[in-house]
Amino acid sequence: MESQQVSFRVAKDDLAHAVTWVARSLPNRVTQPVLRAIVITADDNGLEFAGFDYEVSTKVRISAEVIEPGRIAVAGKLIAEITNTLPNKPVEISLDGSKVELRCGSSRFELPQIPLDDYPQLPTLPEVTGSIDPQLFTRATTQVASAAGKDDTLPMLTGVNMEITGRRLRLVATDRFRLAVRNLEWKPVSESITAKLLIPAKTLLENARSVDPHLTDPVELAVGTGDEVGADGLFGVHAENRETTTRLLDAEFPNIQPLLPKVHNAIATVEIAPLQEAIRRVSLVTERNSQIRMRFTAEELTLSAGGSDAGHAEETLPCAFRGRDEMVIAFNPAYLKDGLSVIDTDRVVFGFVESSRPAILLPEPEELPEQTEDGTYATPDTDFLYLLMPVRLPG
Amino acid sequence: MESQQVSFRVAKDDLAHAVTWVARSLPNRVTQPVLRAIVITADDNGLEFAGFDYEVSTKVRISAEVIEPGRIAVAGKLIAEITNTLPNKPVEISLDGSKVELRCGSSRFELPQIPLDDYPQLPTLPEVTGSIDPQLFTRATTQVASAAGKDDTLPMLTGVNMEITGRRLRLVATDRFRLAVRNLEWKPVSESITAKLLIPAKTLLENARSVDPHLTDPVELAVGTGDEVGADGLFGVHAENRETTTRLLDAEFPNIQPLLPKVHNAIATVEIAPLQEAIRRVSLVTERNSQIRMRFTAEELTLSAGGSDAGHAEETLPCAFRGRDEMVIAFNPAYLKDGLSVIDTDRVVFGFVESSRPAILLPEPEELPEQTEDGTYATPDTDFLYLLMPVRLPG
Repeated sequence: MESQQVSFRVAKDDLAHAVTWVARSLPNRVTQPVLRAIVITADDNGLEFAGFDYEVSTKVRISAEVIEPGRIAVAGKLIAEITNTLPNKPVEISLDGSKVELRCGSSRFELPQIPLDDYPQLPTLPEVTGSIDPQLFTRATTQVASAAGKDDTLPMLTGVNMEITGRRLRLVATDRFRLAVRNLEWKPVSESITAKLLIPAKTLLENARSVDPHLTDPVELAVGTGDEVGADGLFGVHAENRETTTRLLDAEFPNIQPLLPKVHNAIATVEIAPLQEAIRRVSLVTERNSQIRMRFTAEELTLSAGGSDAGHAEETLPCAFRGRDEMVIAFNPAYLKDGLSVIDTDRVVFGFVESSRPAILLPEPEELPEQTEDGTYATPDTDFLYLLMPVRLPG
Repeated sequence: MESQQVSFRVAKDDLAHAVTWVARSLPNRVTQPVLRAIVITADDNGLEFAGFDYEVSTKVRISAEVIEPGRIAVAGKLIAEITNTLPNKPVEISLDGSKVELRCGSSRFELPQIPLDDYPQLPTLPEVTGSIDPQLFTRATTQVASAAGKDDTLPMLTGVNMEITGRRLRLVATDRFRLAVRNLEWKPVSESITAKLLIPAKTLLENARSVDPHLTDPVELAVGTGDEVGADGLFGVHAENRETTTRLLDAEFPNIQPLLPKVHNAIATVEIAPLQEAIRRVSLVTERNSQIRMRFTAEELTLSAGGSDAGHAEETLPCAFRGRDEMVIAFNPAYLKDGLSVIDTDRVVFGFVESSRPAILLPEPEELPEQTEDGTYATPDTDFLYLLMPVRLPG
């Protein structure tokens, strides 16, 4: 039974932020037209806007002057578009028969009401499992999600694997060509909590990106507590006035531990900004997804790309290289750029086993490891690691 | 016979501006690979960069330190991309066997030389016919080109018709749904010159947009003088260090004079900025290319769009309307927006005959015409006119 009278007045900017955010996670093409809806609930506490497509649910609360409480639904992307073009004046929304009327200044819109009879039950946020610094959540998610797969035929690789062990969180993603690992701390509600969750990378990244960069309150992550961890098959995020839930991927994430090299035969450090510039330039003569070659010597890194037919490019950069006289290795330039773009220090550390084996990229630690007696280097202890498969060198 | 030794040094920004500009008019897909080339000529006066696709030719001169004069050609879009990513250091380009070598800072590129044997003869600029203020040229072209057709099966409508009568220039374009006319003054080399030219709108607009907005020297237009006017079938523009030629369209532009209403039964003036905002909002509930309706009464303009099913929008705006009690007329919102966006005054003047006949849009003149004894209004004397076909009102 829906109320037949709904009426409220709300500040234009508050309305615009709320509907824009909910509309963004609504699907572009829907199998059920009702899923195009934003459901607006007006009650004594203000307004709640909600959207759901059976995978992702979003909910945001804002304050408003509610004249008649009730519940209505309208096409989400349309009301978001309309609201964003309105002048900065109070917006009045009310139900008028089967139409939703929106007034603002000299503008008046009549939008068809979407019947709520077929609208699915919105999932509720699982019990809050712990909280995390908002900027850290955004940054760590962005770092790892860059390595996740986009191929839906390999669903386990389209997720970010989150491993919770008390105060430690570990995020991992891989598309088989590169792998990103981020270790970080958070505040669990119980120190004894352990969980493994495979969260769709795309949604997690959207969650992280929609966190207000100036937010100071911690972000709450919710997968349940005690025996209820993961019981709903949902991952929930609560940041400020916003809540989202995402259905977990029902797949086994591969065991990545054996893939990580424990020791390196050579290590190099290079300043990231000029390296990115150089990669960008030499990539111009590569064919799509083709390789760029890196030749490390004691103090110089030479990048090269292209062949003799299509053009050839070469760049030299200073570097610090130890462990071998030289190392020649080739990478997919896009994957290399992805890795460099999520390392936060000024310089990157490369660790090499040999040209045909995966290399690691790390943020520069306080101290580089010393060469051990057998001539190798241990992996420096950093909170982020990007493993990158090389491509075969020509000839 | 091409020189086998070419070598020069040039400032990075000068090179980037020159090759970017020439590359922009090179075709994306070429039937003859040689047309991908930028031809670089190094001589005692510096460098000349040229491109040509049999329709449009471009040529730009810049100063440089020429060590060995000569002529080379390289892939235009590639050298433009490369140059735009280079650090801000001098660039050295030289011919090395069959390769063109480009060095800048620690970057080195080898680009295949494109053989010049098959390269077509570049057209020469016709004799300069007159000159025009650069900002006026850009503005007038932009105003008129918005109404030109994009349908290549109606080639005469894809052009801007330029009519020269001594000191007067008249630019006209139409796609049958709207028509734009701009009258302006220029400085012909001879007061007795007359000519009619049909210039491809797309190229003329590119010419106009590439004129440096801070340029103070007049732009020279070239179609020949005396008996030679139009003899080459080319339209040439010379602005600063740049020259372009465009092949004229070989088609008859329709006679537009009978289309222009001489008198109006009603006129209205409306402030443009709020009208554009209102159109933008009500358009959100229209289907693609559908209509928005305008109802003018003495002091109020009501815009509306949409039907009862898909949503409905209404906006009211102040206006000054004379000649009738009311006028209801409907337009394609995109064409209406195009017209409003090229009118330079704060308010637009609408002139109406009746709902089913084309309306005119004009910049607001110093004085509006008075109603004549037969109850009509003459067209105010303005330098720009936009004629817009109405769409049929529902029911």
